[in-house]
Amino acid sequence: MKKKKIAVILSGSGVYDGSEIHEATLSMYEIMKQGAEYEIFAPNIDQAHVINHLTGEVMNETRNVLIESARIARGAIKPLVEFRANQFDGLLLPGGFGAAKNLSSFAFDGENMTVNEALKQAVLDAVENDLCLGALCIAPVILAKILDEPTLTIGSDPGTIKAIESMGGEHEVTDHGEVIIDEKYKLVTTPCYMLDATIVQIGEGAAAVVKEMLALMNE
Amino acid sequence: MKKKKIAVILSGSGVYDGSEIHEATLSMYEIMKQGAEYEIFAPNIDQAHVINHLTGEVMNETRNVLIESARIARGAIKPLVEFRANQFDGLLLPGGFGAAKNLSSFAFDGENMTVNEALKQAVLDAVENDLCLGALCIAPVILAKILDEPTLTIGSDPGTIKAIESMGGEHEVTDHGEVIIDEKYKLVTTPCYMLDATIVQIGEGAAAVVKEMLALMNE
Repeated sequence: MKKKKIAVILSGSGVYDGSEIHEATLSMYEIMKQGAEYEIFAPNIDQAHVINHLTGEVMNETRNVLIESARIARGAIKPLVEFRANQFDGLLLPGGFGAAKNLSSFAFDGENMTVNEALKQAVLDAVENDLCLGALCIAPVILAKILDEPTLTIGSDPGTIKAIESMGGEHEVTDHGEVIIDEKYKLVTTPCYMLDATIVQIGEGAAAVVKEMLALMNE
Repeated sequence: MKKKKIAVILSGSGVYDGSEIHEATLSMYEIMKQGAEYEIFAPNIDQAHVINHLTGEVMNETRNVLIESARIARGAIKPLVEFRANQFDGLLLPGGFGAAKNLSSFAFDGENMTVNEALKQAVLDAVENDLCLGALCIAPVILAKILDEPTLTIGSDPGTIKAIESMGGEHEVTDHGEVIIDEKYKLVTTPCYMLDATIVQIGEGAAAVVKEMLALMNE
């Protein structure tokens, strides 16, 4: 049987201005461990800013989302505009502030955010082609903006839940490793570092999302 | 029983100029999954250079090893000079070119390399305090330089093996997930991405090294 193939979309490399590294790495690890394969994509755009991860302060630098994401991908990455939905069975968005700063402007604009055009197109193409969707941590807020009334989780953060609901999304509170499945969109979400989690709990969340995505693909 | 505690020493964030991200992440994951805990350290020095991980080319930038390592550590990291061996049971070096460019100059000078002074002191203090040592990928070459005739593995790369032997180290060839244990130094090594490995094989290598380190701690 042909292996299921999941597109993993990154947003930089580092929790405060890019993809959360543990969520991205453990997602890739779980996809392969559970018998599927992945390709990695990221938009070829500048980061919203660069954060010093030691101090939390903004650095006077410019970094590119695709180039920094290539650190997690070990160079095996493509520009997001090259994503073709008909070559995949699923699309997965790890979290990290990059999802809320580079893939969208949620961190700056809340529910009035804009979404990166290539990402919006990729998600709509994925839905059109009946792909499974997965999103970790803060990344589900982007899907609340793009999709029509999806059901999802980001854990239990009241401000983020309010924003999701004001965009028409239905939010369900979850704890570590729990997933919410929206059958309409074949969408699986889990909170990961939106809760005060350990790296083992991130692994459990990634494992659960990948497991449910693969189950939905085989339905 | 008090949890065993392992110091993880990083060298940046990204395989070509820092710590290999999958090796670092999966080492942290396995340490916690196997019931131990970790603290993360890195030297507060500039990187040897910055590599564009998409093209492989040198970028005209300066980045700091401690600040970039903080991306993998999510900010929970200390300067390597603050490492105190008597507070730990083990010391683990993930790989990536950062080990051969920032923690040492092996990538540039081969067997005539220099080793970062803080790292050398940390390793000698670890040996003095009877800690277990672990090293993945290319990182064992540093221990071949610091220690007196250790037995270790970096997989099967002829040039690196020759350099290790010329520094007095004894090399044993290994395949994916296999470890070499030097009882004298309580040192555990595995090849990881020094072989053409998948991310699942990196997880197996990290799991095996952590398992053997914990076994040696309990002897």
